[in-house]
Amino acid sequence: MRGSRGGSILRAPMSAPLYLDHNATTPLLPEVVEAMTPFLTTHFGNPSSGHAYGRVAKDAVEHARAQVAALLHAPAESIIFTSGGTEATALALRGSFLARPARRHLVTSSIEHPATSRVAAELAAQGARLSTVGVDAQGVLKLDALKAALKPYTLWLSLIHAHNETGVMQPVAQAAKHAHQVDTLVHVDASQSAGKVPLDVDALGADLLTLAAHKLYGPKGVGALYVRPGVTLTPLAPGGGQEGGRRSGTENVASIVGFGAACAAAVRDLEETSARVTRLRDELWARLKDAVPGLRLAGDGAPRLPNTLYVLFPGASGNAVLAATPDIAASTGSACHDGHDTAPHVLTEMGFAPNVAVGAVRLSLGRATSDADVARAAQALSTGWRKVSS
Amino acid sequence: MRGSRGGSILRAPMSAPLYLDHNATTPLLPEVVEAMTPFLTTHFGNPSSGHAYGRVAKDAVEHARAQVAALLHAPAESIIFTSGGTEATALALRGSFLARPARRHLVTSSIEHPATSRVAAELAAQGARLSTVGVDAQGVLKLDALKAALKPYTLWLSLIHAHNETGVMQPVAQAAKHAHQVDTLVHVDASQSAGKVPLDVDALGADLLTLAAHKLYGPKGVGALYVRPGVTLTPLAPGGGQEGGRRSGTENVASIVGFGAACAAAVRDLEETSARVTRLRDELWARLKDAVPGLRLAGDGAPRLPNTLYVLFPGASGNAVLAATPDIAASTGSACHDGHDTAPHVLTEMGFAPNVAVGAVRLSLGRATSDADVARAAQALSTGWRKVSS
Repeated sequence: MRGSRGGSILRAPMSAPLYLDHNATTPLLPEVVEAMTPFLTTHFGNPSSGHAYGRVAKDAVEHARAQVAALLHAPAESIIFTSGGTEATALALRGSFLARPARRHLVTSSIEHPATSRVAAELAAQGARLSTVGVDAQGVLKLDALKAALKPYTLWLSLIHAHNETGVMQPVAQAAKHAHQVDTLVHVDASQSAGKVPLDVDALGADLLTLAAHKLYGPKGVGALYVRPGVTLTPLAPGGGQEGGRRSGTENVASIVGFGAACAAAVRDLEETSARVTRLRDELWARLKDAVPGLRLAGDGAPRLPNTLYVLFPGASGNAVLAATPDIAASTGSACHDGHDTAPHVLTEMGFAPNVAVGAVRLSLGRATSDADVARAAQALSTGWRKVSS
Repeated sequence: MRGSRGGSILRAPMSAPLYLDHNATTPLLPEVVEAMTPFLTTHFGNPSSGHAYGRVAKDAVEHARAQVAALLHAPAESIIFTSGGTEATALALRGSFLARPARRHLVTSSIEHPATSRVAAELAAQGARLSTVGVDAQGVLKLDALKAALKPYTLWLSLIHAHNETGVMQPVAQAAKHAHQVDTLVHVDASQSAGKVPLDVDALGADLLTLAAHKLYGPKGVGALYVRPGVTLTPLAPGGGQEGGRRSGTENVASIVGFGAACAAAVRDLEETSARVTRLRDELWARLKDAVPGLRLAGDGAPRLPNTLYVLFPGASGNAVLAATPDIAASTGSACHDGHDTAPHVLTEMGFAPNVAVGAVRLSLGRATSDADVARAAQALSTGWRKVSS
């Protein structure tokens, strides 16, 4: 069962491995490429130029801004375009740190993406006090510990919405309520959840929220930061004063347009895609579990993204299983972690022993994943595992 | 005389205004779009992924890195890809500031792009001492004043290579010699000169050098910082550790590939294009001068970019002239300044009276500019000027 919409370019050639690494990056939707193309050819103007070439580009950027905002149920003017999720998170966390010097306490979880945890560590090295809240065995933030960590002088709480490796959804809305009681800003890294589950900045209690286009079938090199009106940030790189002075540099028009189109497609298709992908993911888990005795699933009992399975192969490292399964393109964890034969950090935080955690393989399905793909993946991975398991 | 290489998509429809604003941004070369397309479709992998999809992307990024490096006669490993010129400059200036805390004196010129001057001002607000060196009546940096400004504790000297408005080339190599005598890092903003004049980081004495792809017929949203091997920088946005840990975030593969192709085209065509554009620029100046009595040219006696004319219309503001000339897409200054009916900063620095400077119009020619275009521009602008001049 393949989606009817432009499946052709979503699919690699038949000889290519089956792509089950959609949490690392996604193929661009054909309609995204189509939306971008005029801005790579005819409409090449600089949005800051006053003439017709500039106005076409500026209008396109503003149209895309409204499309991105709609995904979040946010006003268009709350969206700042950035070069991706990493920059958006750095702008949120460092920009608010610089803008609000009276507060020097930061709270985050122990399972954040490096884009968050490394900025937090850097600010801590510059004198901020950092509290890191742990997760339970399901990979879910400990809300009681969070509540205790928040202080009347806490600047921000930064939480990943859905974990990039486990796919486990974090209780952001409840955490935000606690944070707001002490006037703490709430930053949500929604890079991985956007396009997969509904997002509403008010329901989440997000004051700042990170998006990365390439995780939701848009282009690489563009992302956005939602900034609740009234929240002030100091820019990372001042310059020409684009994006209301909060993010300078000539706008990446074509990619911004593609990002907008990807968000519009996400809004339109979310419900249908989510239901289909959930069914396929559960089918893949059922097949793998049958074929690989002792296989475990991280975050099994927790709410998870529809598309993600973080499985733990017994008696073999995830790297070894993947090396023995060349027909499947997947990873042992985040792309940044990929290739390291060590236990993924998130799993040790969840209490998995290193010798169990090292068996991790992340299988992340996508819009184009089919029933046949699921059968192929289960077959290939269980065969690969049998070759290398001790 | 139109260039034989793929002029079709460089040209807007006949009804569109004539584009003479190539210093604001350039159309993508057809070969650039062609190089990018596979990475917007089939080859969508994340370069950090260990599987085949990732390797194809990683190889493409490294190929592009070599192409960009070749434009500068630099080793490939000295190139860090960024989201554009603004980020590259911020990374150079702030990243070295953070990495070398023993030096707290900065030197720059009075005519830098805001991407430089605003970072400098921000660092000054954080306690650095900033010396700003002026220019002469031709818009050329005063080398004697520069030499006097450099101190044994100066961290960096940051200079624009070719000014974005006047097109005047700055004596970077001589300035760098002085700077290196006191062990000061030399940052060169070559955003505007790259692709228009030959660049060699050793000949320039550059330790850090900024490039922006969209100024040389590449895509928006990607740039590069050259970093001389041995120079250390603190990243602006830490995260996944891409680009050797100096610039995190999933690589903007398609745009990086396009940037590489644009640099390769620049290397190949520079001599021919430069000669042709210089001839057309001089022809445009000759025609305009004849048609507009009292017209002046900023930086007339100085070495200038082949493609740029910064002309000063008498008795009318540049904005008024452009508004009366809808057939020509040009600007009164940098795109960031565009639309402001005030004297451009660079011209007041050069000693032009505000009532003269306000007549400025920047005409920047490009690869596709033809003899017919020059005749059309001279005719249209002189007619427009006559309508509004007092």
